[in-house]
Amino acid sequence: MMKPVDGRKRVVIEGVDPEIDAGRFPIKRIIGDTVHVEANVFGDGHDRIACHLLFRHEGETQLHRVKMEPLGNDRWRAAFQVNKLGEFFYTIAGSVDHFGTWRSDLIKRLEAAQDVALELQTGAMLIEQAALRAVDEDAIRLKEWAYILRVKSGDEETKQTALDAELTATMQRYANTDFETRYDRELSVVVDRERARFSSWYEMFPRSCSPALGKHGTFQDTEVRLEYVAGMGFDVLYLPPIHPIGSSFRKGKNNSVSAQPGDVGSPWAIGSQAGGHTAIHPELGTLPDFELFIAKAKSFGLEIAMDIAFQCSPDHPWVKEHPLWFKHRADGSIRYAENPPKKYQDIYPLDFESEDWAGLWDALKDVFIFWIEHGVRIFRVDNPHTKAFPFWEWAIGEIKREHKDVLFLAEAFTRPRVMERLAKLGFSQSYTYFTWRNTKQELTEYLNHLFNAEVKEYFRPNFWPNTPDILPEQLQMGGRAAFMSRLVLAATLGTNYGVYGPAFELLENLPVKRGGEEYLNSEKYELKHWNLDDQKSLAPLIRDLNRARHENAALQTNHELSFHATDNPYLICYSKRSADGSNVVLIVVSLDPVHVQAGWVDLDLVKLGVDAHEPFQIHDQLADERYLWQGPRNYVELSPFEIPAHVFRVMRRIRTEKDFDYYL
Amino acid sequence: MMKPVDGRKRVVIEGVDPEIDAGRFPIKRIIGDTVHVEANVFGDGHDRIACHLLFRHEGETQLHRVKMEPLGNDRWRAAFQVNKLGEFFYTIAGSVDHFGTWRSDLIKRLEAAQDVALELQTGAMLIEQAALRAVDEDAIRLKEWAYILRVKSGDEETKQTALDAELTATMQRYANTDFETRYDRELSVVVDRERARFSSWYEMFPRSCSPALGKHGTFQDTEVRLEYVAGMGFDVLYLPPIHPIGSSFRKGKNNSVSAQPGDVGSPWAIGSQAGGHTAIHPELGTLPDFELFIAKAKSFGLEIAMDIAFQCSPDHPWVKEHPLWFKHRADGSIRYAENPPKKYQDIYPLDFESEDWAGLWDALKDVFIFWIEHGVRIFRVDNPHTKAFPFWEWAIGEIKREHKDVLFLAEAFTRPRVMERLAKLGFSQSYTYFTWRNTKQELTEYLNHLFNAEVKEYFRPNFWPNTPDILPEQLQMGGRAAFMSRLVLAATLGTNYGVYGPAFELLENLPVKRGGEEYLNSEKYELKHWNLDDQKSLAPLIRDLNRARHENAALQTNHELSFHATDNPYLICYSKRSADGSNVVLIVVSLDPVHVQAGWVDLDLVKLGVDAHEPFQIHDQLADERYLWQGPRNYVELSPFEIPAHVFRVMRRIRTEKDFDYYL
Repeated sequence: MMKPVDGRKRVVIEGVDPEIDAGRFPIKRIIGDTVHVEANVFGDGHDRIACHLLFRHEGETQLHRVKMEPLGNDRWRAAFQVNKLGEFFYTIAGSVDHFGTWRSDLIKRLEAAQDVALELQTGAMLIEQAALRAVDEDAIRLKEWAYILRVKSGDEETKQTALDAELTATMQRYANTDFETRYDRELSVVVDRERARFSSWYEMFPRSCSPALGKHGTFQDTEVRLEYVAGMGFDVLYLPPIHPIGSSFRKGKNNSVSAQPGDVGSPWAIGSQAGGHTAIHPELGTLPDFELFIAKAKSFGLEIAMDIAFQCSPDHPWVKEHPLWFKHRADGSIRYAENPPKKYQDIYPLDFESEDWAGLWDALKDVFIFWIEHGVRIFRVDNPHTKAFPFWEWAIGEIKREHKDVLFLAEAFTRPRVMERLAKLGFSQSYTYFTWRNTKQELTEYLNHLFNAEVKEYFRPNFWPNTPDILPEQLQMGGRAAFMSRLVLAATLGTNYGVYGPAFELLENLPVKRGGEEYLNSEKYELKHWNLDDQKSLAPLIRDLNRARHENAALQTNHELSFHATDNPYLICYSKRSADGSNVVLIVVSLDPVHVQAGWVDLDLVKLGVDAHEPFQIHDQLADERYLWQGPRNYVELSPFEIPAHVFRVMRRIRTEKDFDYYL
Repeated sequence: MMKPVDGRKRVVIEGVDPEIDAGRFPIKRIIGDTVHVEANVFGDGHDRIACHLLFRHEGETQLHRVKMEPLGNDRWRAAFQVNKLGEFFYTIAGSVDHFGTWRSDLIKRLEAAQDVALELQTGAMLIEQAALRAVDEDAIRLKEWAYILRVKSGDEETKQTALDAELTATMQRYANTDFETRYDRELSVVVDRERARFSSWYEMFPRSCSPALGKHGTFQDTEVRLEYVAGMGFDVLYLPPIHPIGSSFRKGKNNSVSAQPGDVGSPWAIGSQAGGHTAIHPELGTLPDFELFIAKAKSFGLEIAMDIAFQCSPDHPWVKEHPLWFKHRADGSIRYAENPPKKYQDIYPLDFESEDWAGLWDALKDVFIFWIEHGVRIFRVDNPHTKAFPFWEWAIGEIKREHKDVLFLAEAFTRPRVMERLAKLGFSQSYTYFTWRNTKQELTEYLNHLFNAEVKEYFRPNFWPNTPDILPEQLQMGGRAAFMSRLVLAATLGTNYGVYGPAFELLENLPVKRGGEEYLNSEKYELKHWNLDDQKSLAPLIRDLNRARHENAALQTNHELSFHATDNPYLICYSKRSADGSNVVLIVVSLDPVHVQAGWVDLDLVKLGVDAHEPFQIHDQLADERYLWQGPRNYVELSPFEIPAHVFRVMRRIRTEKDFDYYL
């Protein structure tokens, strides 16, 4: 075993947090966030140590140094702010603090009334060494301090000089870093814009937006809908694929194997003579139409999220141009998608074990770049878990290097490790199991996993009560009340959430068959004509919820989610708090779509920032009703025939007689 | 961002366990142990994957491959045995299992009665590719299998051939590893001899072994004691430093600042004209005497553990030979040890920030090597936490490279992170906080931390109820019953334990002052004359306990320590189980040295391997009494006037009438 280059580096740094997989992956933050870093830092023996958090933005070469503060038990903490998009790097440095040790020993010696003449000489020596490292004014001041210790050794004034706080600060600034230990790894933070953490999505098929029954909608038709979507308070409008749809093996209504004349096909069967992933489906319009649509949406405060589904219909240009990008069967034919015994003849998957994998990667990345250049900044990626992991890390890394404001939502409904890996590799947001978490225990456990465990550092959930692929049984069976409670849960548990509409607000809940989750007459295979003016529409509730989300900082962060006990298993109660603690929201939701449910909540008042001895006001952001509560136990009753949820803003300050001028 | 060298490596490996600090440190095992390794391994999409645990001994260049088995949720497990001393390395490899995927798809297709003719051709292709990688017989057989699939495509026999288990096994053997993912890191295991995990230590001052009152004992005197020590069942005899003791600033009795004529000084003030760390204190004997003593001890089954205290008296030869190895004060004098305001003028610490740190490291390592060459294999290292961490990693690594049977016990009574770091750096065993853990809650929490958390992978505790430095308050106040219960706790909670005797078995419990932990008239500063035949001696109990430790494999491992509930806070109850489950020991100890304590234990019968519906016998290994118990709740009563503890062997099989020949 070789000796180290310098065996005099006596400080150890370990247990750094946050750190994902030994620094293999970055953590994620939003611009303006404060990143708190902790580590165990210690040396041998009794010497004091000093440690610093070092950080820099990717565009900087010099590291900034922040002094870490001790938390006890050799744990230290410091923080830095990420004030730019892109990647920040951080690491830790520690060294023995010789001057600090000398100083604290000196205090003990003085307290024991020992002779410190010799010790003051030692101190002078340390200060003289620091003076050599210092510049200008500081060098001069250090020499002066050293001189006092050298010459006036022992008198009262000298002792005071030795302990001077300014001397200590200056000495820290010019500490000897020759034997400084650097943490083995440079860790990183990817900083996104705010929408990565706080977004309200609305999914809609443009082709169903024609005012005329049975007519294929266009981008122009869809523009008319923007006001409706923005009016509900959404900020992301997500469109299923808008590319040309293949005709070979096109699926008919309700996913039937053979399409009838006039069937529009699935937008996910991408590619025809009209083009592939960089083309626009001719029936929707042209590329300029789409660019105009993006601009119009923007004027309503809506960003367009584009669906990227890396698979090809048999008519996709790549099939002929790049046969190597597909798998072939023993007879030379291209292998269509299968999940035996199921066959998807209208779709060819891409082969990530292709000899020309590098060419394929470039082409796929260029699809993103193409749309970025045409104004898209958010991509919802279809089934990313069926594409090779290394591709995503490379592609997202490459894209974000140039376009730091681009966001990616991973639609990976698959096993937990795979979903988490995709988030680690760079996806900004992820679909989740929320869609199937219905009971109090399921929701509590899942949310605690997402927001109170390490996964919170890199996995940003996006909660969807429904999608075109998934009409959950709770909605099928629970009707209107279930739609409402699932909506409130999604919009208040998740800072990111979305619905597939108008199916959602119009309470569409018929499946193809009981036990399945496919919509009957699914919009995936046919045009739909929605009656947005239907009286039963949940649009007003959605609008109120989105307004509450915008008005309460607590609902825009996962900083602190806490569950509160209730004595009724159908009542779930939780609170969220803004990072600065100034805004607190308390939510109670009934999980029973059939019966009135009542019970007592047992609040953890500390989490609400409320004093047990003072009453507090709660203001329901949906019903606009106010109540006075005091203490932890309070009564709640929720009916499926009204809104089966309360979204209370907690007002800690209430008016009393003391507010009168003449009080006292 | 560069593309990877080959983007076709589709499998991910993460979450490997055990792994200490991202593989920075080895885990520890004993020769013959089985090392269980788990990891998350998965690929994209629906393909099946195959993964292997790879391992090798440091002396091997080829890695062995063990197939990992799935545990569900993308977690895999495998194990290997460490059958040699030294270091083993392990890592994990995973790849997409194309043949396995093809095979499982084929089964689904056959079940759905699909036409598989084309699929059989695809299978033949995969088999032909494997045949090119195979050798001899296997290559021929694979070609035959492929031929059947190619030619007889489709008939019943062919389908059976395709699913042949032997074909699958052969295909796995010649799987394509071109796109195999290797885990980033090679992890390691340090394998020690059994004494690293199971040892019973007795600490004794040789200089107090003279039969004549007031006379300095010698190694020859100490030889006479070997039978006594071995008779109590110990296997390690640990001697405080045996080097020449300095005379400058020698400490007198009870640590008084100035020694009186005739005062023998502290053995930890090492070095005089007679030599330093590689010399023998002349009053104890000569180097040949010591070698003879080691040999005699061995004949009693006792290993000698030597104390290594890296510090020097002012008379140590190094002070003149290597002034650079010490710190100097402003007046040029060598800095003695201090912990202000305390001063230790009889001791010079070594300076690990010396310019000649490399020379110092060599000299210190050579001290170990010197004694190894004279027959010592166990070192108890004094205050390792006041020496630089990098030194220990280098020195222990260097020493164990050549001498794999050498063991190091770290006497680091310091903060938890520091103690754990020293264990990570290579110390085989460590002193612990057991000495101060007295209550049920304290003991339970501490033991769960040591044996049921990650620290168990590298930190091997050694439990001491007393040391020459520490007479804990529990012993001062609790008298005989406290000595007994602390002894039983140490010997049954710890697989490694030790006592400082004869002070311990003779119940020495007077401190210099109340509130302190120093022994009155401490043996550290004067010769003691012990009456080993004293009737009150705990030697018989120690003998019985050590016999129980030797006869019960459960007490030799920390494989499974479980605490069982009791309804009396003064009664602690726990069980240990041998790795193969054949031996189970159940211990109940009273923590009250004053009163009789009785109560009900509530056993977790699963941990005892006992059926709730059958009675079981428990056999007290100390009192040699047997009881029949049934079910979880059982009554226990312990008296401080007898042995305040039960050490039960659990006998799950008891005799019944069915044992008679004529039963049935």
